[in-house]
Amino acid sequence: MTRPNSIRPPEGRLAVLLPGMGAISSTFITGVLLARKGLGLPVGSLTQMGTLHAGGRSIRMDEYLPLARMEQLVFGGWDIFPDSVYETALHAKVLEPEHLGPVREELEAIRPMKGVFHPQYVKRLHGTHVKTGATKAELVEQVRADIRAFLRDKGCARAVAIWCGSTETYVAAAQVHASRRAFEAGLRKNDPSITNSQLYAWACLQEGVPFANGSPNLAVDFPAAAELARHHEVALAGKDFKTGQTLMKTVIAPALKARMLGVRGWFSTNILGNRDGEVLDDPESFRAKEITKRGVLEDILQSSDSPALYGELFHKVRIEYYPPRGDAKEGWDNIDLFGWLGYPMQMKIDFLCRDSILAAPLVLDLALLMDLAQRAGRIGTQDWLGFYFKSPMTEPGRTPEQDLFVQERRLKDSLRALMGETTGAD
Amino acid sequence: MTRPNSIRPPEGRLAVLLPGMGAISSTFITGVLLARKGLGLPVGSLTQMGTLHAGGRSIRMDEYLPLARMEQLVFGGWDIFPDSVYETALHAKVLEPEHLGPVREELEAIRPMKGVFHPQYVKRLHGTHVKTGATKAELVEQVRADIRAFLRDKGCARAVAIWCGSTETYVAAAQVHASRRAFEAGLRKNDPSITNSQLYAWACLQEGVPFANGSPNLAVDFPAAAELARHHEVALAGKDFKTGQTLMKTVIAPALKARMLGVRGWFSTNILGNRDGEVLDDPESFRAKEITKRGVLEDILQSSDSPALYGELFHKVRIEYYPPRGDAKEGWDNIDLFGWLGYPMQMKIDFLCRDSILAAPLVLDLALLMDLAQRAGRIGTQDWLGFYFKSPMTEPGRTPEQDLFVQERRLKDSLRALMGETTGAD
Amino acid sequence: MTRPNSIRPPEGRLAVLLPGMGAISSTFITGVLLARKGLGLPVGSLTQMGTLHAGGRSIRMDEYLPLARMEQLVFGGWDIFPDSVYETALHAKVLEPEHLGPVREELEAIRPMKGVFHPQYVKRLHGTHVKTGATKAELVEQVRADIRAFLRDKGCARAVAIWCGSTETYVAAAQVHASRRAFEAGLRKNDPSITNSQLYAWACLQEGVPFANGSPNLAVDFPAAAELARHHEVALAGKDFKTGQTLMKTVIAPALKARMLGVRGWFSTNILGNRDGEVLDDPESFRAKEITKRGVLEDILQSSDSPALYGELFHKVRIEYYPPRGDAKEGWDNIDLFGWLGYPMQMKIDFLCRDSILAAPLVLDLALLMDLAQRAGRIGTQDWLGFYFKSPMTEPGRTPEQDLFVQERRLKDSLRALMGETTGAD
Amino acid sequence: MTRPNSIRPPEGRLAVLLPGMGAISSTFITGVLLARKGLGLPVGSLTQMGTLHAGGRSIRMDEYLPLARMEQLVFGGWDIFPDSVYETALHAKVLEPEHLGPVREELEAIRPMKGVFHPQYVKRLHGTHVKTGATKAELVEQVRADIRAFLRDKGCARAVAIWCGSTETYVAAAQVHASRRAFEAGLRKNDPSITNSQLYAWACLQEGVPFANGSPNLAVDFPAAAELARHHEVALAGKDFKTGQTLMKTVIAPALKARMLGVRGWFSTNILGNRDGEVLDDPESFRAKEITKRGVLEDILQSSDSPALYGELFHKVRIEYYPPRGDAKEGWDNIDLFGWLGYPMQMKIDFLCRDSILAAPLVLDLALLMDLAQRAGRIGTQDWLGFYFKSPMTEPGRTPEQDLFVQERRLKDSLRALMGETTGAD
Repeated sequence: MTRPNSIRPPEGRLAVLLPGMGAISSTFITGVLLARKGLGLPVGSLTQMGTLHAGGRSIRMDEYLPLARMEQLVFGGWDIFPDSVYETALHAKVLEPEHLGPVREELEAIRPMKGVFHPQYVKRLHGTHVKTGATKAELVEQVRADIRAFLRDKGCARAVAIWCGSTETYVAAAQVHASRRAFEAGLRKNDPSITNSQLYAWACLQEGVPFANGSPNLAVDFPAAAELARHHEVALAGKDFKTGQTLMKTVIAPALKARMLGVRGWFSTNILGNRDGEVLDDPESFRAKEITKRGVLEDILQSSDSPALYGELFHKVRIEYYPPRGDAKEGWDNIDLFGWLGYPMQMKIDFLCRDSILAAPLVLDLALLMDLAQRAGRIGTQDWLGFYFKSPMTEPGRTPEQDLFVQERRLKDSLRALMGETTGAD
Repeated sequence: MTRPNSIRPPEGRLAVLLPGMGAISSTFITGVLLARKGLGLPVGSLTQMGTLHAGGRSIRMDEYLPLARMEQLVFGGWDIFPDSVYETALHAKVLEPEHLGPVREELEAIRPMKGVFHPQYVKRLHGTHVKTGATKAELVEQVRADIRAFLRDKGCARAVAIWCGSTETYVAAAQVHASRRAFEAGLRKNDPSITNSQLYAWACLQEGVPFANGSPNLAVDFPAAAELARHHEVALAGKDFKTGQTLMKTVIAPALKARMLGVRGWFSTNILGNRDGEVLDDPESFRAKEITKRGVLEDILQSSDSPALYGELFHKVRIEYYPPRGDAKEGWDNIDLFGWLGYPMQMKIDFLCRDSILAAPLVLDLALLMDLAQRAGRIGTQDWLGFYFKSPMTEPGRTPEQDLFVQERRLKDSLRALMGETTGAD
Repeated sequence: MTRPNSIRPPEGRLAVLLPGMGAISSTFITGVLLARKGLGLPVGSLTQMGTLHAGGRSIRMDEYLPLARMEQLVFGGWDIFPDSVYETALHAKVLEPEHLGPVREELEAIRPMKGVFHPQYVKRLHGTHVKTGATKAELVEQVRADIRAFLRDKGCARAVAIWCGSTETYVAAAQVHASRRAFEAGLRKNDPSITNSQLYAWACLQEGVPFANGSPNLAVDFPAAAELARHHEVALAGKDFKTGQTLMKTVIAPALKARMLGVRGWFSTNILGNRDGEVLDDPESFRAKEITKRGVLEDILQSSDSPALYGELFHKVRIEYYPPRGDAKEGWDNIDLFGWLGYPMQMKIDFLCRDSILAAPLVLDLALLMDLAQRAGRIGTQDWLGFYFKSPMTEPGRTPEQDLFVQERRLKDSLRALMGETTGAD
Repeated sequence: MTRPNSIRPPEGRLAVLLPGMGAISSTFITGVLLARKGLGLPVGSLTQMGTLHAGGRSIRMDEYLPLARMEQLVFGGWDIFPDSVYETALHAKVLEPEHLGPVREELEAIRPMKGVFHPQYVKRLHGTHVKTGATKAELVEQVRADIRAFLRDKGCARAVAIWCGSTETYVAAAQVHASRRAFEAGLRKNDPSITNSQLYAWACLQEGVPFANGSPNLAVDFPAAAELARHHEVALAGKDFKTGQTLMKTVIAPALKARMLGVRGWFSTNILGNRDGEVLDDPESFRAKEITKRGVLEDILQSSDSPALYGELFHKVRIEYYPPRGDAKEGWDNIDLFGWLGYPMQMKIDFLCRDSILAAPLVLDLALLMDLAQRAGRIGTQDWLGFYFKSPMTEPGRTPEQDLFVQERRLKDSLRALMGETTGAD
């Protein structure tokens, strides 16, 4: 077991590298800058606001754990548009002018490095701020050079990467993803099964930068990436931030199951008008998302255990691009359930949420916890971070846990174990 | 610790005595009779449909635990109207004719014993089938005689009682509730602080019949009752079945807290048109209900721990009598939450549920689990049954747990412990 | 102007011929049979339940107008499945057994004639009870023979036809639809632009049977049909029954416009699980429906008049096949509106309706009113029946009126005019 | 009939006097000031944004009618708190800082005159900026002096008054309201049946100032006020602005009736957190509101005409004070309707609206239209303005019209008639 004295201390500056610097990244960065000045609360962040039980008492997580402090973070990343974070935030319309004004200069100073962009994986966007290279292998090397330059120029001790880019079109894992050797050959041959996000991930892993994946793209979810991570002793996590509708689904489905109430149908639709919505309007991109969103219910309800209750469940998920709403997403769910003697009931949930507002604290937590894991020598897939993801990655052979409360317990148990504590209760 | 071999076996017939034989009771009885014939599924009942982990595998609860079987149950009870269970079910309109037909004769044969009825505690009802007696002490004796006669006439080995009557007007615990001696003096003096439900409960405890309380009435939730239960070595549980809106509240509030999302307001309204709705239309009866319904959020969110997130929470609960809906209750919730930097979001939950359909499986589970507890020698308040209640009763000095998932874990842990198992995971 | 004494009296039996005998037709027929026996109310039917002002007083429409009585109706039709109306109604699960029982024998006696079925126009259905013929012209002749035989066998004085079949795939009007001559040539050459519904319609018009179209199919909405109707002096009407979501849309949009409130977005989704939902799951069929459903808002709000309020309206309509719900459709609308100084507001409408229950009274009204129009010598397109349709057909050159209340006024004004009354107020 | 040449031209400045200068008044004034500068659109105002048909074409109302222009308006009024309109607007939080900034100086310059305040009519407020006087008669004289001084100081040619104050407790019309003589005696004797709003109204009428009433208070809705208005030749209108939930009710109920769909129940609840919500939290104030809100449905559905459809309608309206929402009101409606053969359906409407944003354009329209009516010599109750009110006042003996679309037609017909036009169609 990992002992606390084996955790390297969080000294020096920590680079937070963001492939994809759009609405989520700009909301995340702005919030951290405001919080540093005492001008805003990082609501939704467990590392900053949460507590856990340890040593017989409730203690703030940032007191208990040797985490990097928000003051130590330095922000960078890549995007296919050249706008500064300030311009991006203005355009995204997630935050009000009153929240951008006090940190405007800092935001203007953060500009993305040129992005890796093969347009066939992102159908609705037309990037202008992009790297060129003859092969995918060359592009990986350019990203690696970016990372080294960033760390050197900003005087950072180490880095973490959190993918905050768009959902890519669905590309299944192929032979090229099976081993490190095959993948590297594929990079040289421009194998079409290798997507943009995989190029960033591969570069990060080679540089020893832990990588967490906030979208449904494979990115680091294939055997070659696991092999590379073991080789370079890096932490991985993913995939797809669990924010609005799916967050509620992983709460309500366990409740129905806890009470042995049956479910015949679950219909979920989403309307949203930001770049994410525009990208998902493309059926191929949506397919990737649909897979991570749909698996959730089946995993939780385990219809094979209770066929009379869940065996005929019809589950449908839709995402609709709807510009009038901008970043303010709305998820509407209808659940057809049944109780005693099969009598039908219905539940409707209308969640008027905000995509980037819900995702930003997850970026902060993942940056700090991935860095902690790395310093503690926890390499490979971080199953215990499943709390943050729609489609939790696991070590091979394990079943992902989807229930939010089981995930929460595992997260906290893992943190206590990391600190050398053997018992606890949350 | 209780050892399984110390559990008396569930031999012979078990009387299920129901003070209050209205919509819930008739739905419960009909469902059990149908399930016995294979004509209906007892959906919502953990004891009949659920599983737990024990001995390294998932096992059906009714296989794992030495529970009474549905075939062993014999139904009886009291009401202030003389209708047979068949007539009551017809009037309640919870179940369709197709579900009443196959068991009509059995339902017609079950008629309530005369009820205890002091109308000041139930404002909107006018009972006609009531006991008379000079003092409350006399009424208790009549109920005791009823119990003994029922057991004898029906050839039952033992009994459990589940209160399924209406919510009484709010009557605070007083001096008369402080001790067994004071209470018995109060019974003789017709103390106005002693309500109808307390007379039933007192009689049951004196006869050694475990008593679970499905409404917010004090019933068995006062020191004198605890003292009497210890004296007669009887199990107690309560109070107020956790069914529709509160069930969801104890699921969604923990989720928001798990993610450290703030809550500024929570508004809950209910429309229902059955006898329960009619009774709760009286402000004094509603007050009792409001207390059990409102405490839930505060207990879960613990605003003292996170004042920035929950310190200004405004929580309002309403119940509206609305006859067009009959037993089909609708709970509408609006939640005003906030995230990163305080940005507001909203959630609406509309639960088109059915009061008695959700309550019936709870009656079945509680009957079987209370009987199990009694046979296992677990006397006094059964904290571990908090899973079933809006306002869980605890042993003195303990804080009730409201989170549905923590309650579920405790329930299953307690059952494993009862069976002599030391570890487990659900 | 038409004078009442020029209306031929409603003597003899009236055949109601239904191309498409599924959920709507069986619900309609069952309801009329029950109403005849006094066992059910034809709720939703203006001709049976409504009133209008005439002669200075409020008078029931069935007293004021020389309509056929329900007792005079004889039901027949065509379908691509051979089930009797009783079997169809059982399968559709719209009506409870208690409503089918009392008229079971009558329903069993009504069996559809073999349907015209070219499967390319109805993607998801596989008909088994179909006519065969070398050309579409031959199929038209077979339908004409059916009509004549039905009238003779049942002793009917005259007939009306109401299309109650599925939505066909979208097929645009083509050269073949431009004139009677071109269409008849097309029938002989099996022109692929001629759909099933057009074959029924053509046959009816040739037999002098008024034809109203309850689906978005062109059916009678093309120049050749208008020409044929004039030639045979027959009444036409259509298209697409205005029932759930669109009904509400044509009420709420005029209200927002009346108050000069702006609209930025309107998102409408529908979940339904009957055969109609299954058919509309096919994108080509949905396209036909989408056109009739989407035009409504633009027509009402007239953004060219108020570009500041409606010029940027984004309108999206979805229909989702969702089997758990059966015939019980649910339409969910989100409206993004704005008021004073552009401040945004939202409205959500969740309509838990029943497709066939809402459509059945429209079939009855249209049967009686089309017959009335025919007897009054009103030939060609009946604009005044726009009240019943999502996409009202008009005489060439007129703009369809979509506002439900303007449509209602026109309907009643037209009826008064038909009766020779010059003024009125409703 | 009124002839256009008999309308006095809108020359000079028009004082808009507002008893009650809170959220609605400050929103109204700010919006007009912004619109004058071209910095905001007066969305929701028919006089500024709407059109009507006249002379065979569609014409903007502000071109067609001789209305005062926004530039001619001068704002004043009374309140029981001394804050300037700017301070009030800040406190009300209806408008964003970006909308207050550009007109801050103008708003700061507008301060209310001291209010008339007998606290028994407004339970939850504690005014500090109030007139003193031995009798109600004296207070009326003080208000009259205020009006004369305002007109003189601001150089206004004439004035209109729109009541924008809180809802008063319900006080039924009494003997003192029966005649001008009785009312004036009551003023001198401090009759408790005379409320604050009636004192303002009485003063206005005596000064020849037309008075429109935006709340459910009687204000000008009693015989003595009508008598006084006739005597001084003044126009009256009321009562209770029709904004959120009731606006939708007067649209949806007529639609259900148009289609002869039955209604068994209608439940309406409102949550709002502004001063209006706080006042209505008092049961006596709510009673006044409840009366105007409830009458609406009965008037529209006319259950006596269609007892089978509306005879058993159960209608319940609730207003709940809920501070987290501020001025952003939410109205939730559940409608239990039924169709063909009585089959039940449901509709839910959730209107996330903004109280003052919806009311402000009504204040503007009423100010301009009441001034027009006065200049056109239309004295007494303006039935034709019922479009703007929840509980439309009528001349004695007339039934109020509640249907929004009938009201709209009457409004436009009346305006055309005022302009000497005999026909038209909207």
